[in-house]
Amino acid sequence: MRALVKKQAGPGMEVCDVPKPSFGPNDVLIRVRHAGVCGTDLHIWEWDSWASNRLKPPVVIGHEFAGEIAELGRDAAAAGLLAVGDLVTAEGHIVCGHCLQCRLGDAHLCRRTQIIGVDRDGAFAEYIAMPASNVMKLDGIPTEIGAIMDPLGNAVHTVLEADVPGSTVLVLGCGPIGCFAVGVAKAAGASLVIASDYNPKRLDLARRMGAHVTINPGSDDVVTRVRELTGGDGVDLVCEMSGHPSGHATAFAAARLGGRVNLLGTPSRTTEVDFARDIIFKGLTLYGVTGRKMYETWHEMRRLIRAGQLDPCPVITHRFPLEKIAEAIQVLKDGQAGKVILEIGA
Amino acid sequence: MRALVKKQAGPGMEVCDVPKPSFGPNDVLIRVRHAGVCGTDLHIWEWDSWASNRLKPPVVIGHEFAGEIAELGRDAAAAGLLAVGDLVTAEGHIVCGHCLQCRLGDAHLCRRTQIIGVDRDGAFAEYIAMPASNVMKLDGIPTEIGAIMDPLGNAVHTVLEADVPGSTVLVLGCGPIGCFAVGVAKAAGASLVIASDYNPKRLDLARRMGAHVTINPGSDDVVTRVRELTGGDGVDLVCEMSGHPSGHATAFAAARLGGRVNLLGTPSRTTEVDFARDIIFKGLTLYGVTGRKMYETWHEMRRLIRAGQLDPCPVITHRFPLEKIAEAIQVLKDGQAGKVILEIGA
Amino acid sequence: MRALVKKQAGPGMEVCDVPKPSFGPNDVLIRVRHAGVCGTDLHIWEWDSWASNRLKPPVVIGHEFAGEIAELGRDAAAAGLLAVGDLVTAEGHIVCGHCLQCRLGDAHLCRRTQIIGVDRDGAFAEYIAMPASNVMKLDGIPTEIGAIMDPLGNAVHTVLEADVPGSTVLVLGCGPIGCFAVGVAKAAGASLVIASDYNPKRLDLARRMGAHVTINPGSDDVVTRVRELTGGDGVDLVCEMSGHPSGHATAFAAARLGGRVNLLGTPSRTTEVDFARDIIFKGLTLYGVTGRKMYETWHEMRRLIRAGQLDPCPVITHRFPLEKIAEAIQVLKDGQAGKVILEIGA
Amino acid sequence: MRALVKKQAGPGMEVCDVPKPSFGPNDVLIRVRHAGVCGTDLHIWEWDSWASNRLKPPVVIGHEFAGEIAELGRDAAAAGLLAVGDLVTAEGHIVCGHCLQCRLGDAHLCRRTQIIGVDRDGAFAEYIAMPASNVMKLDGIPTEIGAIMDPLGNAVHTVLEADVPGSTVLVLGCGPIGCFAVGVAKAAGASLVIASDYNPKRLDLARRMGAHVTINPGSDDVVTRVRELTGGDGVDLVCEMSGHPSGHATAFAAARLGGRVNLLGTPSRTTEVDFARDIIFKGLTLYGVTGRKMYETWHEMRRLIRAGQLDPCPVITHRFPLEKIAEAIQVLKDGQAGKVILEIGA
Repeated sequence: MRALVKKQAGPGMEVCDVPKPSFGPNDVLIRVRHAGVCGTDLHIWEWDSWASNRLKPPVVIGHEFAGEIAELGRDAAAAGLLAVGDLVTAEGHIVCGHCLQCRLGDAHLCRRTQIIGVDRDGAFAEYIAMPASNVMKLDGIPTEIGAIMDPLGNAVHTVLEADVPGSTVLVLGCGPIGCFAVGVAKAAGASLVIASDYNPKRLDLARRMGAHVTINPGSDDVVTRVRELTGGDGVDLVCEMSGHPSGHATAFAAARLGGRVNLLGTPSRTTEVDFARDIIFKGLTLYGVTGRKMYETWHEMRRLIRAGQLDPCPVITHRFPLEKIAEAIQVLKDGQAGKVILEIGA
Repeated sequence: MRALVKKQAGPGMEVCDVPKPSFGPNDVLIRVRHAGVCGTDLHIWEWDSWASNRLKPPVVIGHEFAGEIAELGRDAAAAGLLAVGDLVTAEGHIVCGHCLQCRLGDAHLCRRTQIIGVDRDGAFAEYIAMPASNVMKLDGIPTEIGAIMDPLGNAVHTVLEADVPGSTVLVLGCGPIGCFAVGVAKAAGASLVIASDYNPKRLDLARRMGAHVTINPGSDDVVTRVRELTGGDGVDLVCEMSGHPSGHATAFAAARLGGRVNLLGTPSRTTEVDFARDIIFKGLTLYGVTGRKMYETWHEMRRLIRAGQLDPCPVITHRFPLEKIAEAIQVLKDGQAGKVILEIGA
Repeated sequence: MRALVKKQAGPGMEVCDVPKPSFGPNDVLIRVRHAGVCGTDLHIWEWDSWASNRLKPPVVIGHEFAGEIAELGRDAAAAGLLAVGDLVTAEGHIVCGHCLQCRLGDAHLCRRTQIIGVDRDGAFAEYIAMPASNVMKLDGIPTEIGAIMDPLGNAVHTVLEADVPGSTVLVLGCGPIGCFAVGVAKAAGASLVIASDYNPKRLDLARRMGAHVTINPGSDDVVTRVRELTGGDGVDLVCEMSGHPSGHATAFAAARLGGRVNLLGTPSRTTEVDFARDIIFKGLTLYGVTGRKMYETWHEMRRLIRAGQLDPCPVITHRFPLEKIAEAIQVLKDGQAGKVILEIGA
Repeated sequence: MRALVKKQAGPGMEVCDVPKPSFGPNDVLIRVRHAGVCGTDLHIWEWDSWASNRLKPPVVIGHEFAGEIAELGRDAAAAGLLAVGDLVTAEGHIVCGHCLQCRLGDAHLCRRTQIIGVDRDGAFAEYIAMPASNVMKLDGIPTEIGAIMDPLGNAVHTVLEADVPGSTVLVLGCGPIGCFAVGVAKAAGASLVIASDYNPKRLDLARRMGAHVTINPGSDDVVTRVRELTGGDGVDLVCEMSGHPSGHATAFAAARLGGRVNLLGTPSRTTEVDFARDIIFKGLTLYGVTGRKMYETWHEMRRLIRAGQLDPCPVITHRFPLEKIAEAIQVLKDGQAGKVILEIGA
């Protein structure tokens, strides 16, 4: 089958012919239709220090996808919950099920997590094998949307780890997951959703996802504007999706006394924090977001999409065939894209 | 001033001339514009056993209202938070502030609660005096809506005492508070809101408040329909607003395993409960709803209304001047009304 | 191997010679040392209507046990988390992992649960095969205690589904799980633990488990005493472990306004409930307890035992070899026993 | 009356004769018996930049105290909840009751808080006037303990803002509040309480308050030891009471994946934080602790003390009469003291 492979240490990836994946009795073989390209894939393409420390080539890349079940392992078939032909997506974190975190309902923090497309073969391929327990039926959701439920789930996890109905929310950073967070906050009943980014195209996407107000920190002071918009109180919830140290400072200043800051954007360097002024005297709660809650996040997300409350489509800005991966990577690097989709077996 | 007074034990009420209320240093005198007529007022009119045990006539009736601040007590004025001319509504439960419940943040369960229009003079009058701490500014919400924020707050309390975004909700009983609950569930991001009542007019109001599906138990089996609509699971949350023992049975059967039943409707007789089958083996949580959380409910409600997410207006079906109280009571008795408003000083 | 088998419909059980259980790649074969006899086993012995509707003989009985790992399936061995010789106990509910409840972290409410000793072969035998994921290492806890971690876990689930430190707790019904609940409440920092039962022997066990006060409803009014002991407020938490309709009435009356009633005792008939007076106007929360949370309950329990905070030993009153099952059943029927242990391979 | 007064800008304080405080209708006049000296009082004595920016001399110092009710304002008397002769302590934060935080149940974060002994006259005096709503009856707790319920309440707030029963807890920094936190964690059912400090005297106090293990970072690596003691997992809860940037780094490293860090120690400078590694990928929750929850913390604390679960006495190391304030301040500066008490009207 065709697959996009990181063949050896160093930049780039290649479309190769590789064997169809083998699969065990509890696994499912999925024919991929659509896949999403993520910032992580860009790191792998560029072969930065994170990628070179973590990946062991050769490995098939890609962790965001949806497709059609082609075959079922013996036990997966016997369970009777999935069938050949079902359209599905899957949680890309394959967890151990036995560590403290898995046992306490925090499997998204499993120490032995294997991520597809990073630690084992991934989804930029005609077929992928997945444990049946990671597979989620789409139940009518198109595979193009199914292909981005991984990053959309990051946003659902970030936003719903707060009490949203009637609340005021600031989303810092309007990359795809930030834009998704805007849509999730609206769908979950936030009364005011403010989005901030330096990039006007991204602010436009945020507006299309439902932001009541957008702020460009290049021309407006975010904290001042947030205070004006909230009667001087600050917001109940900040979703920090930018990963910039300046985003942290803004987040702490823009949150109200007793508010909450959920952090998803992963900075590449450290931040100076004034804990006394910004966290302790403000009585803030901070929460670090990793992955998606397995599987509360998936169920909440599936319902929000199927009910029509959450439509991530405006964020999809580009589509490429598998062979055009270099172009897909380039639009990501240009910083003008929302979500980029690979059309594989559609 | 004119006021609607229960002058002595027995049915009925009278419009009388009574002195304007006196008020203390921490109080506020409010000129009433609109007031809401509640089932409680009907009980008082009819002088049923509850009313005759609780009320000590003469007492001015009415606990749902909004109006304009006419005068401020010395300390209330000094606090600088309220001003003459402000349009306001108020929490009608005046609590002690010292009991265990008040101290633990459950003031809505204060043992020494005094309810206006029941335990002390109420709002069906040209003026009412209220402690400043019970007063909520309307901040742009019309006084007609302000006048029903007491029962609307019951619905907000009932619905938001659950995790609503993306959830499935069944509202049993579509009187005014049931209809409000439909609107609150929608505003708070529920993915499916099902409403049930025997009365087609009320089902029509529920639809106008946003119910995805309405069920008339006279022609359809509620539990069967709920299961069909939820893939066999049952709903995450049942709001029991009917107060009928049959509503309890339906609530327990329609909730999913691990679901939640929030109970507001107050039955006049006991219910047979099969705790093993319906509560314990299902892992249900039940919650009894009294009043409004002071003052979380009010803040959430005010935001939902001001953001345009929650519009209770479709539920207002009748308006009368104070003098026509007998007609207002009659439309309530007929069971065809939604919310009935008294126009007092508008 | 020797095993206690319900061979056909009807009362009684027999010690038989049966084949050692086969086991799959993800399973573990455990040589049983100690097992606990439960009220459920009594129902099965007596062949009451529940038992005759649910069991399909022949089936090996018993669901509470601990022992030593004798063999590991291929994949269980490869996972490297369990080893031959490990002393272990196991969660006896074998769940599907795919239903809504399993996916939402409520696997204890899985619709497809198979219970060992009820729906498939159980633990009153020399060997039992269990899925590796159900197995919990004892890490130094003796197997006699390991054998009762199933019912002890019911108590941990019941008590810890509340905010216990500094709280006041009433345990209604001092059978083994009620006595365990007393010990758990003490270990979890309750400031006052009151236990109630008609049986003086059980009240003595409750005192030995740490109850500050015991009440015999035969001679004292429970609600009156509870109010006296709590300054008139009632308790924060009632654990209803009796399963008697009178226990429900007492529970609702003894809980404080805004309090909580966690229900584990399963009544054999319905209860008349005055929802208005007892649940709604009191603002109570009720929670139905099934099984043990998988696996938060197990971790909390293991820590409480290992730290010496919770010692269930006083509740163990009788020990029998497997062959003396008839005597074990008899002491249960006499109602004078605490926990009864079968010594199998010790 | 005698009182300890900061008479003008600059270091030091003086015992002076000042008028007995006047009090309003809702206030209570308390004859002070015991008072606690706090690090805040040291800042005021030294007149550091915080003190010189905040205090407006002359002001009576002192915010931790207990005593006997001497007189009641008219309305406070009428409420019937407090009486002359009652032994009481009081919450020293006097809040507005109207801001968003007060209305949402977060009065400890009120923007308009007035702190006694800082923003208005305090408790190092023969008499203090307090709003009746801030007063807590001691109900048998000695006034010497009552005098330290303010800092003890900080510890109760810090610890109980987590799920403690059966958990593992690390307390970083064993000043008086750190030592109290050790005692609270034990009382609340923690299975393992580890305490860390450079000062051997403080570690000794921590052991006397119930720490299972103490670590001196001067000779042992805290993170390494914590991992050893928790099977490699790290602790569920870190209480950061040191206020040192190095404490933050240790806190984040010592918390388990999915764990919690509650921060009370207020650093005087900023901390470099690696949000990606330490907060986000670990899925940590951080919570900034200010004051005491009004009044949940007080109720929990009072119960823990009265039940004998929590005994703060070992932490009291010094007692002085009011006139010896200079000596009291000196033992604080020496860093060898636990809690220092002023005996005023005992």
